[in-house]
Amino acid sequence: MARSKNFNFYPVILAGGRGTRFWPLSRKRKAKQLLPLNSNQSMIQETVARLLPLAKAKNFWVITNDDLRVPIAQQLKKLNKKQIIAEPVGRNTAPAIGLAAFLLLREDPAAVLGLFPSDHVVLDLDRFQADMHRAAAIAANGENIVVIGIPPTRAETGYGYIEAGAKSKDGVLQVRRFTEKPDAATAAKFLKAGNYYWNGGIFIWSARTLVNALREHLPKTAALLELIAASYGTKKFAKTLAKLYPQCENISVDYAVAEPRSAKGEGKSGIYCIPASFGWNDLGSWTALYEHRAGQQDENGNVITAKNRFALNAKGNFIYSDKFVAAVDVDGLVVVETDDALLITTLKNSQDVGKVVKYLDEKRIKKLV
Amino acid sequence: MARSKNFNFYPVILAGGRGTRFWPLSRKRKAKQLLPLNSNQSMIQETVARLLPLAKAKNFWVITNDDLRVPIAQQLKKLNKKQIIAEPVGRNTAPAIGLAAFLLLREDPAAVLGLFPSDHVVLDLDRFQADMHRAAAIAANGENIVVIGIPPTRAETGYGYIEAGAKSKDGVLQVRRFTEKPDAATAAKFLKAGNYYWNGGIFIWSARTLVNALREHLPKTAALLELIAASYGTKKFAKTLAKLYPQCENISVDYAVAEPRSAKGEGKSGIYCIPASFGWNDLGSWTALYEHRAGQQDENGNVITAKNRFALNAKGNFIYSDKFVAAVDVDGLVVVETDDALLITTLKNSQDVGKVVKYLDEKRIKKLV
Repeated sequence: MARSKNFNFYPVILAGGRGTRFWPLSRKRKAKQLLPLNSNQSMIQETVARLLPLAKAKNFWVITNDDLRVPIAQQLKKLNKKQIIAEPVGRNTAPAIGLAAFLLLREDPAAVLGLFPSDHVVLDLDRFQADMHRAAAIAANGENIVVIGIPPTRAETGYGYIEAGAKSKDGVLQVRRFTEKPDAATAAKFLKAGNYYWNGGIFIWSARTLVNALREHLPKTAALLELIAASYGTKKFAKTLAKLYPQCENISVDYAVAEPRSAKGEGKSGIYCIPASFGWNDLGSWTALYEHRAGQQDENGNVITAKNRFALNAKGNFIYSDKFVAAVDVDGLVVVETDDALLITTLKNSQDVGKVVKYLDEKRIKKLV
Repeated sequence: MARSKNFNFYPVILAGGRGTRFWPLSRKRKAKQLLPLNSNQSMIQETVARLLPLAKAKNFWVITNDDLRVPIAQQLKKLNKKQIIAEPVGRNTAPAIGLAAFLLLREDPAAVLGLFPSDHVVLDLDRFQADMHRAAAIAANGENIVVIGIPPTRAETGYGYIEAGAKSKDGVLQVRRFTEKPDAATAAKFLKAGNYYWNGGIFIWSARTLVNALREHLPKTAALLELIAASYGTKKFAKTLAKLYPQCENISVDYAVAEPRSAKGEGKSGIYCIPASFGWNDLGSWTALYEHRAGQQDENGNVITAKNRFALNAKGNFIYSDKFVAAVDVDGLVVVETDDALLITTLKNSQDVGKVVKYLDEKRIKKLV
């Protein structure tokens, strides 16, 4: 795709998330995207690796924060350090991807951007690349916006959904509307309906399209981002970023751009959905990671990372430790041991680990967060 | 008591036990008696400390094994190293206390011995010492044997019981018989009856009485022990001990001496029981230790040794770790973390930890046992 005669493709990787749900493994300076949860590469290393066949290394942009900029640069040696940008404060996805769009537009009026989370699992890399090829080709055309729809496998209430309508002339789906995180009954209805997809946060559009959309829907922020982009490459950039970026609206690109655009109506909004064919998992909790590692379960459904272990009458536990682990007469637990902390909870309630981080934040126990 | 005009008191401390039920904290070279489970002193240090008001330091004998001799000597600086004896092989309590009796008889014909486990908790030291004074005074008389009876607080099936009869002229109880570990129904009957006591393994008798009893009931072993004792203080001692001790019968002093003596009948056997007034706990498992530490429980019944911790919807857990501990949505667990191992089990089944040690023994994973 990088070799298309009409446009160049620019992956913009959002890597500012803290990922508290993998505490105690994840920390402020070692967020989820920096952890090797799916392979011996970290999540962000995998993200870059699967995009490198689609774009030149110099075309990558990474938007992160001050805590993570250096560790991310250390993990991503192939990328240009200057294109790993730390937001002075988190402002959600609209200013982040918007800044990338303004920056690119100055150098490449035909640039096509892909917005990618840095901490999701993709199972089939070939299919992922094929889906992105299709998406970018559509996005290069006019003012089209393409969103990747993840085919839902359960009535999940933790994600936003995309309601798809008819097939377009390109053979992809027209987006009818975006919906917020649903309640359980609505999620069940969505799952049954068959034309709803999870919004996994992957958008593809041209820099021109995105800039125009921001100017239309988020004019104040668009103006600020344009000023910041104008200073890029000069000595004033850091100062300008530090001063203006915090004034940007704190809003997701879905909410700021995609939703209002979709209100123009199916077929008129120019928003298209490509159902992901590649297999996706956002690994949102220890429990999700346990399920993702089904292939590593012993005959009683235990996933134990320790090389040496002994399990007796123990079923369906996820135990993360380098030490010798003995699990006896316990079911459904999550136990995670690091150099300085020991978490003991259950697969059923592992999302509550965020409350531990909240406690540590409140108590200002900084070395543990 | 050491100052009695008629006899000297000699504590013989049995410290050869492995205490696998406190794995992974306990190891072959750091058995339960070496662990500070009840205070900042180890169990054997506490044992010695509560006996020091009753006997001169030079009167103490400790019988242990090769793995523990050096670590015990390091913990018990006040005692004479030569009186910390390592059995070449474990032969249960009869040969151990018997050897001490033969050794003492050579130097002090009026010696009174007390047999003490090295890994039990005593709550009231003054009462303990008063009980021992009474016991030693009775044991110094004729061929009397005194056993300390622990008033039972539950229908425990893990201990032997002492059935007491009438009061003797000394105001202590005559022993009717010793019984093996009972089944649950029998234990309940014993508890209800009121005249049954747990046999906590504390016996007091004169060296003369014990030697005579061994010669009568265990003649082969008595002859071997006499030969070993005769070599004590010579260059041949180590070799003689190594050669002859393994030939001794592997039998408890209860079974070898106390039970056959008691068969002579209440009032004729000369066996007396002093009900312990001092509060006793043998800390036989992580669960027993958890219960013993009731005073350290938080408002939800958690005992967490970590200085810093966060418990949320967590009830009745025992967590042993130096790290920051987060326990969320878990009940009734035992989690013990050491430098090289992590145990996860339940308060209900913590005695099963012995099976972990069995596994490690079988797999010859020596560094973990």
